[in-house]
This record gives sequence, C-alpha cells and structure tokens, in this order.
Amino acid sequence: MQNFQFHSPTEFVFGKGTENEAGFYVKKHGGSKVLLHYGGGSAVRSGLLSRVKASLENAGIACIELGGVQPNPRDTLVYKGITLCREEQVDFILAVGGGSVIDSAKAIAMGVPYDGDFWDFYSGKSPEAALPVATVLTIAAAGSEGSGDSVITKEDGGLKRGAGSDLIRPKFSIMNPELTCTLPPYQTACGATDIMAHVFERYFTNTTEVEITDRLCEAVLLTMIKETPRVIADPANYEARANIMWAGTVAHTNIVGVGREQDWNSHGIEHELSALYDCAHGAGLAVIMPAWMEFVYKHNPLRFAQAAVRVWGCQMDFEQPENTAREGIARFRRFLRSIGMPLTFDELGAKVEDIPALVEKFGIGDGRTGGFVKLSAEDIAAIYRIAAAPTLL
Amino acid sequence: MQNFQFHSPTEFVFGKGTENEAGFYVKKHGGSKVLLHYGGGSAVRSGLLSRVKASLENAGIACIELGGVQPNPRDTLVYKGITLCREEQVDFILAVGGGSVIDSAKAIAMGVPYDGDFWDFYSGKSPEAALPVATVLTIAAAGSEGSGDSVITKEDGGLKRGAGSDLIRPKFSIMNPELTCTLPPYQTACGATDIMAHVFERYFTNTTEVEITDRLCEAVLLTMIKETPRVIADPANYEARANIMWAGTVAHTNIVGVGREQDWNSHGIEHELSALYDCAHGAGLAVIMPAWMEFVYKHNPLRFAQAAVRVWGCQMDFEQPENTAREGIARFRRFLRSIGMPLTFDELGAKVEDIPALVEKFGIGDGRTGGFVKLSAEDIAAIYRIAAAPTLL
Repeated sequence: MQNFQFHSPTEFVFGKGTENEAGFYVKKHGGSKVLLHYGGGSAVRSGLLSRVKASLENAGIACIELGGVQPNPRDTLVYKGITLCREEQVDFILAVGGGSVIDSAKAIAMGVPYDGDFWDFYSGKSPEAALPVATVLTIAAAGSEGSGDSVITKEDGGLKRGAGSDLIRPKFSIMNPELTCTLPPYQTACGATDIMAHVFERYFTNTTEVEITDRLCEAVLLTMIKETPRVIADPANYEARANIMWAGTVAHTNIVGVGREQDWNSHGIEHELSALYDCAHGAGLAVIMPAWMEFVYKHNPLRFAQAAVRVWGCQMDFEQPENTAREGIARFRRFLRSIGMPLTFDELGAKVEDIPALVEKFGIGDGRTGGFVKLSAEDIAAIYRIAAAPTLL
Repeated sequence: MQNFQFHSPTEFVFGKGTENEAGFYVKKHGGSKVLLHYGGGSAVRSGLLSRVKASLENAGIACIELGGVQPNPRDTLVYKGITLCREEQVDFILAVGGGSVIDSAKAIAMGVPYDGDFWDFYSGKSPEAALPVATVLTIAAAGSEGSGDSVITKEDGGLKRGAGSDLIRPKFSIMNPELTCTLPPYQTACGATDIMAHVFERYFTNTTEVEITDRLCEAVLLTMIKETPRVIADPANYEARANIMWAGTVAHTNIVGVGREQDWNSHGIEHELSALYDCAHGAGLAVIMPAWMEFVYKHNPLRFAQAAVRVWGCQMDFEQPENTAREGIARFRRFLRSIGMPLTFDELGAKVEDIPALVEKFGIGDGRTGGFVKLSAEDIAAIYRIAAAPTLL
C-alpha cells in the first residue's frame, strides 16, 4: 500500500425532505449571501428551487440566482458567475443540480478571489483561496458532491479540462434521493455508468496487496449491478435510488481508492468525445471504458479475472484465466446494454474519421499517460478504434 | 434506507514515517501548546515518543506529557489530565497510542472547558466545547482515531460508559502501520476482533434494502478474514498490517453503517466483562458476540445466512436457511479460535456465578435495549450463559 492522505470533510445530509434544511446548513457554515447556481428549468418546474429559496429565506440568508448551466459546463457561464458574485458581494455558492452545476459552482468559487483568469486552475495551477461551495444534489453520477474536482469545457475550441483542490470540496451536500426519482432512464443509466467508471479507474492498479480498497471498490460495483436495473425498471423506487445515490458519493470521495496507483485514462479519452460531440459523459464512458479494458487486460489478466469473479459472478477458468478476464469485460458490456447505454462509436454518434482529431486534441504528443498501462497516442487511437468495433460482447 | 447525516472531517495521514509529520499537522490545526498523552512504556522504549516530540519541536510547538493510560482507561487519570491542561494552558491534545489513550484524550478534551464533572458526558449530557484532539495511532482496533466516541471506566465501582460528540472527532490521525508490527499476536487478534465487531454491530439490522452499506460491511469483514491470519503468522507483514489498519478506521467512521438501525448490544454486554475482569475488550467480544448471534439469529435467519454466504463463503442451504445461518456463526467462532481468541467464559477468566451481578450492573432493569432484537435483562443473562457454554462451534 502506498502512503496516502485522506480528507473528506464534507457534511452529508441524506434523505427525504432534506432540501428544506439548506438554509440551516448555509448558516452553520458561515454563509450570509448566496449565489444559487442551477441548470435548466427542471429545478424550477419541480418546485425544488422554490423550496431551497424558502429555506434560505427562513434562515435569514440573502440570495441571487444564476441558472443556465449546460451539461459539459462552459467557461463562458463561469466568467459570468465570477463577475456576478463580485458585484453582489456573494460569500457562499450553493449549487442545485448535478455534476455539471456543481463543477461550474466550484470554478466560480475559485475564480472570485483570484486576480487572474480562472482557467489557470484548469491548466495546472493550484488555487490559494475559494468561496465556500455546497450542493443540493439532483443526479447520482459525477460524485462532485463529495470531491475536490471540477471539469469545465472551454467554449472556444471545445477543450475539456479538470481542476482539483481541497478548497473546493463542498462544505455540505444535501442528498435527497426523491429528487432523482423523476430522472429519465437514459440519464439515470449515464449516471450509473459514471459511478461504476469512477470505481474501475481506481480498481485497475499496479499496486499490490490493497485488499481493503479492492473490496470497497467491489462493494460499490456490486451495489450498482443490483440497484441500477431496479431503477431502470421502476424509476420511482426510492430504496434503489437511495442506494445508488450513496454509492455514487462513496465511489468518488476516494475512500475506495486510497493507497494505490490509479488509472483515469478512460475518463481522459472519453472527455474528448463529450467535448467534440457534446454527448453525455456517462454514455461516452460506456463506449470507452470497456474498449480500454479490451486493450489493456493482458497487462494483468488475473486482476481482470478477479473483477470477473468477484464483481460479475463469473466462474474462474483456472486453466485459462484470460478467458475469465474476457468474460468479465463482455459481462460489463452486456450490463451496460441492458440499462440502455450505447456500446459503439455509431451508437454514440461518434465518427471513426474523427479519431485522428480526437487523439490530436488529447494532446499527449510523444508522451505516455495513465497509471495501469501507460498509453501512447497510438494506443489511444487503437482504443478509439476498438470502441468503434468492439469484439468482446 | 433511513435519513442520515454523515460527517467525518478527520484528516487521515497514512503510511510509513508519517509520525514525523505530527508537528506540521498540529500547527496546521492551530495548536501551539500540546498535551502529549500516552500509555505505558512501549511508546517511550520504541522511540516513537521521541520522534513525535522532535517533530513538534521542529514545528515550534511546546508540549507537556501525561503517560500512564491503562487499557480500559480510568476516570482518575482523566481528572489529572484536565487539571494539568488547565494549569499549563494547553490548547491541543495529541494522543499517542491505541483506543484507550485516544478515549482518555477525548475525555480530557471535553473536561477542560467544562465547569462541572466530565463524567456528566458519560452519563448522557452533550458537551458544548472541547479542546481539539488528534492522534498518532499505534493499534488497529477501536476505530477511535476516526470516531466521535470515547469509553471510560469509573475506577470506583468499575462502571464503564461511553460518550459521543462530533466535537471530539480527531482533527487529524497519523496512521503508520509500521508502528503496529511489534504488537504481540494476542493484542493484534483482540484488535481484529474489535474491528469485526464494529461491523457486525451495524450489519445486523431491521432496516431493509441497504445494499450499499451491507456490501461495504462485507468488504471490511472479507479484508479482515484475509489479512488477520497473515499478521498472526507474520507479525511484521507491512502490507497486511496496512490493510487491517485502514479497515479498522473504515469500520468505525460509520460510513459502513449510515442509513440503518444498528444494534450495539454485544458491545454493551461485553463492557460489563472488561469492567469486572479487566480483560481486553476484543477478547470479551470474541466470547460475547457469537453468543449474541446464537441467541438472536432466529429473528432473521436469512440475514444471518447472507453473512454466512457472502462473508464466510458458506454454501447456501436453500431448503433450510437456518442451517446456513448457524454454519456462519460456527465459522466466525472457528476463525476467532484460529487467531488465538478465547471463545468461552472459562477461557476469558469470567465466572458463571457472576452472571447475576453482570446483568445487575448492565442496569437495564425492566427495560429492553438494542436495535436488531430488543433484549431484556433475562435475555442478557441467557447470552452470558451461552457464552459460558456455546454450542455452535
């Protein structure tokens, strides 16, 4: 096991009706004037925004609003938010939405006290200060409600990049699974795929003898395999929604990934797809992650066999473990298909002829990247090609 | 799933050599004058205390010392610590040791700013303030390094009682598995039993459809079943020690127990044993917890069968699930035996004739207590009798 630090100070407030406690928690964490940040109209139409505003008002907290966050959130709205917060002397940002809204809120939080361009933080610079951020989560997916990460897309040129700092870990996250019961099946499945991908990025490692984090990873995956089909069949199933929502947070605070080398190439390779085609991140991952697995499994067939046996319930082929490894990848794809996810470039709306441009934009040049297997630009192109025509189905 | 709040703000600093960062972290968390609290001579003899003191000195932090914490830590030393901290105007308490030292430190932390008797907090009162506490952990067992709990024994009369508050959650916990490599097998096994008990107390619940926390519980248990025999056979095995140490923390921050009713009767029933006989808490749990299981499993045989299959690797008897439930309990006992734990009153040094006195001291009167099955005084006596002569072996 590698040395590590683990710090997850976010206060999670979980369950039915908890959005009505937003005002109490903003006050507890020192906020007096809030930017309420959200996405499209669904938070308005559902009455969620009204309930949150009423809760803030009851707690004597002033608020201004900035809606309009799009999936794959853009830098343009972040700039607008930074200006607005400065003008209005906002001291707390409350994101009401999913990962895109939260990531946009985190970008604004870093940008407000910073003299330069906030994009610096998405180009490798570490922030020294940030406004406090908190969330009212409406989609189980990105894990941004418990993480110090944010991903933003530059509108001009479609560059999609991430930033990370403990300063942008939410002070609190209100998580009411009821709010996710109206999500359409496709978005639900995209979220579930993203959650599983966050675990797999940590699971496939060259660090040996990390049984505790292996088992915790498997715990989240087994939960997703049980609960996701239940919500696809019965979207209003509160219990299944609750299990998925908490699993999504556990998957990404890093408690299942400490002490080990992690990979994250599938996320990077997918980001180019959602940046170019504006597809859902989870759908892109459904296409890319099994393709990545198909490309790398020979690097450590027994680790893939472990996942196949412990997570997918395969029988171990002790004579030819690679068969078990391959069967696990095929079962992952069959699972994704069963919850309505695309598996190929075609199904995603991606084009084989764009592969050179995707690789170019990935921007790796002659270098290599990743934890489990260090990939070159040519390897990444090969993974895109597998995603266009997968064989383990 | 029940509504819940989860807040684990402790900063965990894990791995080789991390005790040398104690000064840095005390400073980061605002300490300027530290009470260094520890137990017997082993922290002195091993050089650990010197390394911690050097680290504090390098960071410009003053410190005074109070050693002598015993297993099943006493109120008498707590009173001494409170007086000392007030006289010396200490503003931070650093516990260097295991659960007993940490629990004693937490009691002192609550007592210093309180006008009344600190024992009030162990009699149901909630504290309104506490000095900041942090830890350098030397035994994987109690989980106190990541919890807001503390258990203290009143020397006069041997009353053993617990207190809980977010105010006493450690600000940081330094966890170097190397420090546990010199622990004797018996203490190691006691710690492992305590860790597993913390999980089982949460696992056996009447709350249904809590798959994510079920699976997380099982993850910790499976890890302990793999790693504990490795350290018993090879005490200096760093990797196994590291897995156990992190498992011990995960087992007790409550991340594996949120959203569900919990039990905790085994802990309460054991506390009377360690209070009366001054035996190790883990050894007492090895005797009591399987006896509790034997007494309650018919309340929900399928839940016990789930543990038997998923945790102990039993084959499910679909015609007679109770057989599987019983086999799981027997395997737990065989596992405890294999790591050198006592299984009976005799082996622990407890006496059947003391059972009425133990039940009397438990102090339940005509009431009932617990989550999974609400036990009466007579039920508790029955569990002690099973512990004296267990049948599922």
